[in-house]
Amino acid sequence: MSELPPSLNPPVRTLLGPGPSDIHPRVLRALAANTVGHLDPYYLSLMNDMQQMLRATFRTANPLTLAISATGSAGMESTVVNLIEPGDSMVVCVNGVFGGRMVDVAERAGARVTRVERPWGEVFEPADLKDALVKARPKVVGIVQAETSTGAWQPLEEISKLVHDAGALLLVDAVTALGGIPVEVDRWGIDAIYSGTQKCLSCPPGLAPASFSPRAVEVILQRKTKVQSWYLDVGMLAQYWGSERVYHHTAPINMTYALYEALRILHEEGLDAAQARHLRNHRALKAGLAAIGIEYTTQAGRELPQLNAVRIPAGVDDLQVRSALLNRFGIEIGGGLGAFKGKVWRIGLMGHGSRESNVLQLLGALELLLQEAGHKFAHGASVAAANAVYAGG
Amino acid sequence: MSELPPSLNPPVRTLLGPGPSDIHPRVLRALAANTVGHLDPYYLSLMNDMQQMLRATFRTANPLTLAISATGSAGMESTVVNLIEPGDSMVVCVNGVFGGRMVDVAERAGARVTRVERPWGEVFEPADLKDALVKARPKVVGIVQAETSTGAWQPLEEISKLVHDAGALLLVDAVTALGGIPVEVDRWGIDAIYSGTQKCLSCPPGLAPASFSPRAVEVILQRKTKVQSWYLDVGMLAQYWGSERVYHHTAPINMTYALYEALRILHEEGLDAAQARHLRNHRALKAGLAAIGIEYTTQAGRELPQLNAVRIPAGVDDLQVRSALLNRFGIEIGGGLGAFKGKVWRIGLMGHGSRESNVLQLLGALELLLQEAGHKFAHGASVAAANAVYAGG
Repeated sequence: MSELPPSLNPPVRTLLGPGPSDIHPRVLRALAANTVGHLDPYYLSLMNDMQQMLRATFRTANPLTLAISATGSAGMESTVVNLIEPGDSMVVCVNGVFGGRMVDVAERAGARVTRVERPWGEVFEPADLKDALVKARPKVVGIVQAETSTGAWQPLEEISKLVHDAGALLLVDAVTALGGIPVEVDRWGIDAIYSGTQKCLSCPPGLAPASFSPRAVEVILQRKTKVQSWYLDVGMLAQYWGSERVYHHTAPINMTYALYEALRILHEEGLDAAQARHLRNHRALKAGLAAIGIEYTTQAGRELPQLNAVRIPAGVDDLQVRSALLNRFGIEIGGGLGAFKGKVWRIGLMGHGSRESNVLQLLGALELLLQEAGHKFAHGASVAAANAVYAGG
Repeated sequence: MSELPPSLNPPVRTLLGPGPSDIHPRVLRALAANTVGHLDPYYLSLMNDMQQMLRATFRTANPLTLAISATGSAGMESTVVNLIEPGDSMVVCVNGVFGGRMVDVAERAGARVTRVERPWGEVFEPADLKDALVKARPKVVGIVQAETSTGAWQPLEEISKLVHDAGALLLVDAVTALGGIPVEVDRWGIDAIYSGTQKCLSCPPGLAPASFSPRAVEVILQRKTKVQSWYLDVGMLAQYWGSERVYHHTAPINMTYALYEALRILHEEGLDAAQARHLRNHRALKAGLAAIGIEYTTQAGRELPQLNAVRIPAGVDDLQVRSALLNRFGIEIGGGLGAFKGKVWRIGLMGHGSRESNVLQLLGALELLLQEAGHKFAHGASVAAANAVYAGG
């Protein structure tokens, strides 16, 4: 090349958007550990240990638990294309961007899709699915546990019973859920589930943890057609993750190091403790935001602690505030997607990013920017409200 | 978890197998740089700069040049599923594992596949394709430039003319080729090409550089059906890589840092210089191996400099030697795949791994192990032969 581009020099950010989230320094160090081969005895033993940690994170004994070698969206595709054969009936619950995406993915896999819809920001009640289960007689029902576009927290236990009573498999998007709120694969009877590394696991994006129940594996083994994606064919992937170690593709070694370390950090703290931390920081943030007139858009009582979707106050310029947060304070928060564009901010308190210090710096900065734009409240009002929660309010 | 798995502690390896290859320390440091958001202005400008470097590496002006967010095998799938619609005719040239894999991927995409075959280790002459081009009237012809399973270096220029004369598109697997041998996308008229990061780009596995000619883009725009993979749909990916920056999936930020740095290192040296280095180290290795009775399995004159497929000498135990190399010397070389299992070693001298010091340490170690197993030659015979090449032989 005649002229080389500049040296790599990323600015330092506090990542409080919808993901990627703040990365623990230990995870970055793990990422940079010396690379070994994907069939090296050390790597194979690392995969075994990682599988154990993934099972503990999903709360499952499923043998077919692995990390797909691509981001969370490929996790969605992997679960759908392995369970669906052309012509199969699938019900997809849509109350935001990611349910909508699942419809697209399922249709590309040849599914006859029945959409069940709720307004953005709301969740599904079991009753919402009854008609579709009777009429569509689906093989698979897909639903998003933590809708990253709306901040809605979808309960799954009762819906799972209903889905299984109808003879269908339950497929769950846990991209933003895993690590931040309870995800009980075995207790709730989830048949296929996927997540991403860059949300509450606090690892850079690049892998998609996934798990399939024995019932789902049975369905996959009885397919009449090959899985349409060679890369995401879990039957083949299982032979590499299993004791046969049959070469499939070259695994992303260093990303695996990072996820291994991220899972280790999570289990050092403990899943329950991590979830309690997410909840506490969410409560403090919510109190602080309320003190400066910022309200949640999500159905009351269904707000995700790790993804806070709030209404942009009237008269406030979305881009101007987000740019100032980024450029002056180094803080990233997310804008709204689709129908929420320009109307909603998405504040992530995920994994390592869910910390008191992050809540306080964001509130302080946001408060100042709104004051400078002419909004009136006492200096420190938001931080005072948050600290009252932290102090045991 | 009741008991945490051990801390991450990978052994130090010299990676001289079929990939991943030795990683430059600068690339590992880049991998660990602080993460920014996937819509951060810095990241978007980094993507632009990386696209420029990818174009320079592929020697193309193709606007649709990008890195697919998964490993090289997903690069294969991305080119195939975007160009192929169900019922399309595709000719695939098979002379090793990766041509065979392309057949599988194409059939899953609904292609009517015509296989053209050559024995493992040999390459295709233009004449080998003529019949198939007439009879199958393919939309796409797929071929592997650097067969990682056999070490065969496939010339492409004449075949490209033939393919275009037949009105077809040329799809090239350059996973092991890119950076190690000339890859001239525009001059040769390649329509779709993909690579991997973990071979001659010396970056950990996890991304698949890819490029599509304007002719290929035209074909994609005129599809009657949606691309079967949502994740690999380059029409959607182009909107994120293009000026629109439409959110598709969360890009693997840190892997992008690593590839950026790896490409920068490659272009600091210069593509031509890097290829000359690969050739020189290959010649030295070849001379050294000949001195201890080890011969190439690949068709004479078509040996890849970066992937040396050699016959395991009679009476030598494959696994025993490779284990000793790994455990005593920390050197990884590859075994044979498929029909070559137990018969062939694959020695990679790729990217940063293609260094005099690596050639010499491998020869010295291999010579010693063979001597210890009872083979007779003078101490240092292999290194002497290699050094004669380095000294200007």
